[in-house]
Amino acid sequence: MTPTVITGVPRPDAAAVETLARLGVSTTHEAMGRIGLLKPYMRPIYPGACIAGAAVTILAQPGDNWMIHVAIEQVQPGDVLVVGCTADNTDGMFGDLLATSAKARGARGLIIDAGVRDVKPLTEMGFPVWSRAISAKGTVKATLGSVNVPIVCAGALVQAGDVVIADDDGVVVVPRLDAAKVAAAGLAREANEVDKRRRLAAGELGLDMYGMREGLAKAGLVYRGWNNT
Amino acid sequence: MTPTVITGVPRPDAAAVETLARLGVSTTHEAMGRIGLLKPYMRPIYPGACIAGAAVTILAQPGDNWMIHVAIEQVQPGDVLVVGCTADNTDGMFGDLLATSAKARGARGLIIDAGVRDVKPLTEMGFPVWSRAISAKGTVKATLGSVNVPIVCAGALVQAGDVVIADDDGVVVVPRLDAAKVAAAGLAREANEVDKRRRLAAGELGLDMYGMREGLAKAGLVYRGWNNT
Amino acid sequence: MTPTVITGVPRPDAAAVETLARLGVSTTHEAMGRIGLLKPYMRPIYPGACIAGAAVTILAQPGDNWMIHVAIEQVQPGDVLVVGCTADNTDGMFGDLLATSAKARGARGLIIDAGVRDVKPLTEMGFPVWSRAISAKGTVKATLGSVNVPIVCAGALVQAGDVVIADDDGVVVVPRLDAAKVAAAGLAREANEVDKRRRLAAGELGLDMYGMREGLAKAGLVYRGWNNT
Amino acid sequence: MTPTVITGVPRPDAAAVETLARLGVSTTHEAMGRIGLLKPYMRPIYPGACIAGAAVTILAQPGDNWMIHVAIEQVQPGDVLVVGCTADNTDGMFGDLLATSAKARGARGLIIDAGVRDVKPLTEMGFPVWSRAISAKGTVKATLGSVNVPIVCAGALVQAGDVVIADDDGVVVVPRLDAAKVAAAGLAREANEVDKRRRLAAGELGLDMYGMREGLAKAGLVYRGWNNT
Amino acid sequence: MTPTVITGVPRPDAAAVETLARLGVSTTHEAMGRIGLLKPYMRPIYPGACIAGAAVTILAQPGDNWMIHVAIEQVQPGDVLVVGCTADNTDGMFGDLLATSAKARGARGLIIDAGVRDVKPLTEMGFPVWSRAISAKGTVKATLGSVNVPIVCAGALVQAGDVVIADDDGVVVVPRLDAAKVAAAGLAREANEVDKRRRLAAGELGLDMYGMREGLAKAGLVYRGWNNT
Amino acid sequence: MTPTVITGVPRPDAAAVETLARLGVSTTHEAMGRIGLLKPYMRPIYPGACIAGAAVTILAQPGDNWMIHVAIEQVQPGDVLVVGCTADNTDGMFGDLLATSAKARGARGLIIDAGVRDVKPLTEMGFPVWSRAISAKGTVKATLGSVNVPIVCAGALVQAGDVVIADDDGVVVVPRLDAAKVAAAGLAREANEVDKRRRLAAGELGLDMYGMREGLAKAGLVYRGWNNT
Repeated sequence: MTPTVITGVPRPDAAAVETLARLGVSTTHEAMGRIGLLKPYMRPIYPGACIAGAAVTILAQPGDNWMIHVAIEQVQPGDVLVVGCTADNTDGMFGDLLATSAKARGARGLIIDAGVRDVKPLTEMGFPVWSRAISAKGTVKATLGSVNVPIVCAGALVQAGDVVIADDDGVVVVPRLDAAKVAAAGLAREANEVDKRRRLAAGELGLDMYGMREGLAKAGLVYRGWNNT
Repeated sequence: MTPTVITGVPRPDAAAVETLARLGVSTTHEAMGRIGLLKPYMRPIYPGACIAGAAVTILAQPGDNWMIHVAIEQVQPGDVLVVGCTADNTDGMFGDLLATSAKARGARGLIIDAGVRDVKPLTEMGFPVWSRAISAKGTVKATLGSVNVPIVCAGALVQAGDVVIADDDGVVVVPRLDAAKVAAAGLAREANEVDKRRRLAAGELGLDMYGMREGLAKAGLVYRGWNNT
Repeated sequence: MTPTVITGVPRPDAAAVETLARLGVSTTHEAMGRIGLLKPYMRPIYPGACIAGAAVTILAQPGDNWMIHVAIEQVQPGDVLVVGCTADNTDGMFGDLLATSAKARGARGLIIDAGVRDVKPLTEMGFPVWSRAISAKGTVKATLGSVNVPIVCAGALVQAGDVVIADDDGVVVVPRLDAAKVAAAGLAREANEVDKRRRLAAGELGLDMYGMREGLAKAGLVYRGWNNT
Repeated sequence: MTPTVITGVPRPDAAAVETLARLGVSTTHEAMGRIGLLKPYMRPIYPGACIAGAAVTILAQPGDNWMIHVAIEQVQPGDVLVVGCTADNTDGMFGDLLATSAKARGARGLIIDAGVRDVKPLTEMGFPVWSRAISAKGTVKATLGSVNVPIVCAGALVQAGDVVIADDDGVVVVPRLDAAKVAAAGLAREANEVDKRRRLAAGELGLDMYGMREGLAKAGLVYRGWNNT
Repeated sequence: MTPTVITGVPRPDAAAVETLARLGVSTTHEAMGRIGLLKPYMRPIYPGACIAGAAVTILAQPGDNWMIHVAIEQVQPGDVLVVGCTADNTDGMFGDLLATSAKARGARGLIIDAGVRDVKPLTEMGFPVWSRAISAKGTVKATLGSVNVPIVCAGALVQAGDVVIADDDGVVVVPRLDAAKVAAAGLAREANEVDKRRRLAAGELGLDMYGMREGLAKAGLVYRGWNNT
Repeated sequence: MTPTVITGVPRPDAAAVETLARLGVSTTHEAMGRIGLLKPYMRPIYPGACIAGAAVTILAQPGDNWMIHVAIEQVQPGDVLVVGCTADNTDGMFGDLLATSAKARGARGLIIDAGVRDVKPLTEMGFPVWSRAISAKGTVKATLGSVNVPIVCAGALVQAGDVVIADDDGVVVVPRLDAAKVAAAGLAREANEVDKRRRLAAGELGLDMYGMREGLAKAGLVYRGWNNT
C-alpha cells in the first residue's frame, strides 16, 4: 500500500457534532445500536473533558510519530486527531510541542492507540488526550504511514471525517453520514430518560417501571427465603 | 442451578460495619489475618470514597444487567451491591439510572467485577463504584442469574450479608458473623500503631523499634562498604 | 548470592539532581539518548509530584518487605527508595508507617515494582509513590534480599547512587556519573524548545519548521484528493 | 482465620466421577447450566490429558508451597490437588519431587492457580497439571495456609470433595452432591448430540435443524445482496 | 445499524489464494508492505496447519454464537469463517458441532477473536482454528449481529471476500482485489530469498551480503574491545 | 550513550556450560539461590529443547532488527543470542534467514524479549527460540542499538559472556565468573534429590522425610475432622 495523505476530506454536519459532544459517549453509543466503541483501555489523561469532532486519521508505525507532523497540516478547526498503529505500542508518540501545534490549527484533542507524554503541560494547556498508556518513551521519524485512510484504532474502524466523541466513559466513533441521525436518536433517548430518572429517584423499582416481573417469572426466576436455603 | 433470589438475608452487626468503614480496607485486611481481599484490578471511579455495608450479591451473565434490576428490590439502607460474572467482562453494566434507583433504596455503593459507565454523573451524585473497567458498552437483559447466592467477585468469595469495605486501597470482604471480632481486632491494631507512628516520625528506625537486627544477622545478612565491592 | 547491604554509597552531584528534578522525566529521557526509562505500568499514586534523588536500591522477595526496613537506615536526605522484586508481585509492600519512617530520614519518595497501600494517608502526608499496583495485601518479613546492589526495576537497571527522576510521565534513571552531563544536555534541549513552541503556537507547521517536506517526498509519500479515492 | 487441615472429607460418587472424566469439561459445564468453569488462563502443561477426581483443596501463600506438602498426606487414590493463592502469583510452586510423592499417593493430577516447573519430567511421568504459568521460580516454606477449606481457584469456588474435571478445554468443578445428577445430564446431552452431528455432517444446516429461521426474522435480521450494498 | 446478512459476496482469485496458502503468513505480510496482520494473541489450537481462503465475516455479540449458525449457510467450499465481537470476550463460541457443519459446507477453518472449545475433537477432525482463547464457556443465541459486513478482528479490518491466510506465525488478511498482486510479490520475495539463504548457510554475514557496514558506520556505530570498557 | 559493539568478550568455562545445559533451568536457578530467572512470559517455540551457552547480548530498538545482523558477526560456536528492547514489543524481529546465518556461525539458539516468526522452518531446522510472542510483523533496520553491553531481558540483567540456560521451564542467566561454582552446586543438588525421589516414590511423605511436622505445629497448624466443621 502506497503511503498516502488524503486531502479534502468532507466534514460531518456541524450541528450534529455539537449535539453529540453534549450527549457524550454512552448515550451516543446506545443511540447507534451499541456499536462503534473503542476498547476500554483508552483512558483520558485528565478527568472531565468531553469533546466531539471530525476525525483526521493517522496510520503510524509503532514508535514513529512522523505522520502526526504530516497530519497536522490537514487539521481544520474542530477536528480530532485519531492515531492507529501497525503493531501494539505504548511509546510516547505525542507531547506538548505537537499539542501546541495541533491546538494552533484548531484541533480539539487526540485519540491515540499508543502512549502520550508531557501529561502535566497538556493538562495545563487544556488539550485532552485519550490513550492506551502514558509514557515518556521518545520516538523516531523514520518510516512513512498514511493520513486520512481508514484505520483501526483500539479495535474500532475509523474513517476520515467520521465523528469521534470522547469523555470520561471512553471514545466512540459515528460514521460521517450517520451523524445527524444518531444525534437525533440520542436526543430522543435523553428526553426519554428524564422521567425515568425522576421516578427511580422517587423509589419506584425498575422491575415495575420497565414491567420486568412477568418476563423474569417466565424465564424461570425463583424467590426463596434465607431460612429455606 | 436454578436462577434464584434469596430474600430475607440477615445483616451484619451495624456498629461493626461503622467501625470497619472508619478503619478502612488495609487495616481490616490485616485484622482478618490477611485474607478476604479482592484483586487489585478493582479500582474506584473517583478517589476519596470509603464505604462499608452488607453485601447484596449478584451473579450476572457477562454483558447482561438484568439481575441488577432484580437485586435493587432486595436492597436495604446501608447495603452495598456486589456483582460477579460467569465470565470475564468489561461491559458497562451499570450507569446513572441504576445508580439513581440504588441510591433511592439506600445503597452505599457498588462493587462490580465488570465495567461501569456514566462516570461523571456517578461522581457528581456521590455514588461510589469500584470496578475492573470503565466502559460505555451497553448491555442486554436476556439471561437470568441469581441474587444473594455465594459469588466469586474479583477472586474473593462473597456471601450475601457479608461486610464489604472499599476505599482507595481496594475492596475487602468480612464474613457476616466475624464482623464484630474483626472490628475489635482492627481497633486494637489501630491503637497499637499510634505510638509506632510517633516514634518513626521522630526518626527511630524500624530496625530498632521492631528489634529486627538479631533476626537479620541470624538469617545471614551481611554489611559491606562500597569500596569493598 | 549472599544477602548484602552495601554501605557508604556515593551520591550524585547535587546541582545536577536539582536540575533533573526541574526538567522532568521526558526531557531527561531524551537528553540521555532515549534510554533509562522504566516501563509505563509504573504510575504515581497522585498526580503532580515531580522528584529526583539518589537511588537506595532494594532487592526484595515478592510479598516480603523486610529489606525495606533495612534500607531505611541507609537513607540520606534527598534519596529515593527503589524496590525491585525477584518475581512479579502486586502486594502492598509499603504503607504509611514505612512512609513516616522514610520521610523522617529525608527520603523524597518511593519507586516500587510491586504494590503500595495506605494511598490516602500517603497523599495527605505528601509522600509520592510510583508503583505497578495499589493493593492492601499485607506482607511478611521472612526472607532476606539485598540493599544497594544493582537491581532491575520495571525493566530498567538501577544501581545505588544513580539519579532517579519521577513525575506524571513515569520514571527514568540516570547513571550517577552521567548526571551532570545529562542535566546539561537537558537544559540545552529545554532552551531549544522555547522558540519552537512559540513558532508552533503561532501556527507554523512542524513540516516547515523541521524541514520535513523533502524527506517525506523522497521516502515516497503521496498526496491524493478525497474525490480521487 | 486459624490455619487448618480438614480431615475425613467425604468423596463424591465414584461412578459419577468416571462418567464425568469421559464426558470432559465442555459437556460437563453445559450439563451444569454453564457454571463452575475456571478462567481460561488455566492451561494444561501437555495436550491430551483428561482427568476427573475429588478435590483436595489447598489455600497457599504466593511463592510458598509448604501446604502442598501438608496436603499430600490427605490424598486418597483418585483425588486431584487444587491450589488457590491469597494473591496473584506465577512462581513454580510444584515440581517433579512433589509430583512423585502425589502420584505415589494416588493423585491423578494438579490444578494450580500459580506456576509449575519441571514440565519435561512431569510430562514423562504422565502427571498432568493445569496451571496459570510455567516458571522455574523456586518457593519457600515459611507461612501457613489451609487444606480442604473452601478456596477460590482461577475465579471458581472449590470445596473439598467436589469433582474437578480437566482436559484440553480447561477445568470445571462440580459440587460433590451434584455429581450424579450432572453426570446423568451430561450423558443425556451426549446422546442427544449423536444424531445432530450426523445430520450436520450430511450438510443439513443448523438454521433448519434447530428451527432458527423464524426467530431470526422476528428479531429483525435482514438479507441483502452484495450488489445492493 | 440493522442486523444484516450480505449474500452473493464475490470470491478472490482462486489461483492467488492457493499461492498465498503456500507462501504463508510472514511472506504474505511482507509482500503487502507489512500491513494486514491480526494481533499476535491469535494462536492456532494445534501446530502445523496452514490455510488460505475467502473470508465469511461475522460480527457477533460477546458470548452469543447465533450469527455463526447464520453464517454457515453463506459458506462456499474454500471459505474461512472470521468472527469479530462487539466487546472483548473469551467464551467458547465454537465447538465440534459447528465445526462438523462448517466442514460439511467446505469451510477450511475458523479465525475467531474470542474463545473456542472441543479442542481435542477439532484437532482429530483436522479443522484448524486460530483464536484468542480456549474456553469451555457456553454461549447463548439471543442477540443479532451481522454476516459479511466489514468487521474488526483482532485489530485488523476484514471485509467479506478478502483472503485470510493463517499458519503457525499468525493470521494476515489481503484485500480481495489485491490478492493476485500480493501473490506475485510474495513469489518474487520467495525466489529472492533462496540465494540469500544459501549464502548465509555457507557462513556469509548479513553485514556483507546486505552491504550494511557503511550505513552502520555513518549512523555512528562504534566498536570497542572488552579490555577498553 | 554511544551505540557500541563490544568485541573480544571472554567466554565462560566450557565444562561448566555443558553441566548447566544438562542440569536445566530449575536446578540451576535453585543452585544460584533462586535468582537470575527471566520472567515466565518467555516461552519456547517448540517443546523439548534444552540449551546453554555464552550470551551475545543485543540492545535493540523495538521493531528494528538491525543490531541482530551486527551481533551475528560476534557469535562464536556455542553462543546464545540474547535480545532486549528499549520498549515493550512483540514484532517478529527474527526469522529463518537470521536463524540460518546464526546457526552457520555456531549459535545454539535465541532468547528474545520480543516476537519471532517463521516458527515452522525454525522448528524444522532445530534452532530453538524463547520469546515473549510469535508474530509475523516485519521490522525495519533504521536505528542503532548496541551489542555486548549489559541489557535487561525479560526482567533480568544479562551481561555479555554470562551463561544462559533455557529449557521447557524458561530461561535463567548465570554470571560468567559464577558458572563453575553454580554448576558444582547444581550437581550436588541433583545428587541429593536421587534418594529423595526414591523415598517419595515409595510412598514416604514429605512431611516425614523433611521433618516438617514440628515446625507446622509450632506455626499453629490445626487439624479438624470434617464432621466438626
